Amino acid sequence: MPPLPLKWDEFEYLPVVLQDATTGRALMIQYMTREGFERTVRDRSTWLWSRSRRTFWLSGREGGGYEVLDLRGNCMGDSLLAVVDAAGRSVCHLGNQTCFSNPLLPSE
Amino acid sequence: MPPLPLKWDEFEYLPVVLQDATTGRALMIQYMTREGFERTVRDRSTWLWSRSRRTFWLSGREGGGYEVLDLRGNCMGDSLLAVVDAAGRSVCHLGNQTCFSNPLLPSE
Repeated sequence: MPPLPLKWDEFEYLPVVLQDATTGRALMIQYMTREGFERTVRDRSTWLWSRSRRTFWLSGREGGGYEVLDLRGNCMGDSLLAVVDAAGRSVCHLGNQTCFSNPLLPSE
Repeated sequence: MPPLPLKWDEFEYLPVVLQDATTGRALMIQYMTREGFERTVRDRSTWLWSRSRRTFWLSGREGGGYEVLDLRGNCMGDSLLAVVDAAGRSVCHLGNQTCFSNPLLPSE
């Protein structure tokens, strides 16, 4: 069990940022439930929670989740970092290698 | 203005992951309000929102926020990535170079 208690939010979620181990790319922010967190630790595979569909969402690896190489909590116990093996695949439903593909800063 | 509308959550927040431009390290997940987002775009400096203190939190750069080199929305418009210049400093109140310093996977 983690040495620092995790502080689940009012909906019993924790946000988790997925980062690709090889490229270092930040892939997406998702959410985990307690059960999903425990499954993630057990399986070393991401068990993400779809808040809209209210179901587990085993993305990556053809529905088997992303392999988790490292899992860390932050200093406050209210967010997670999952370092995953995305193996250079497109992780986004738009076919991109990251979900963060929408530039928001105007060009200088 | 962003081409994709941003979907603010029920509390009018968006989660944002801060990533250090130089090291690629995922630093923390924080939150932005609409006003903080607009200030961040304008100033190219992070205007983060402290949900517990209900105030802006200008971390980094001695209270001036972290310099934002890139700001991206995700494919759903419900989360943000801020690539910042943390200049190798300790960003965490514990003195660490990332807030994600609490290992959660048991040793194999």
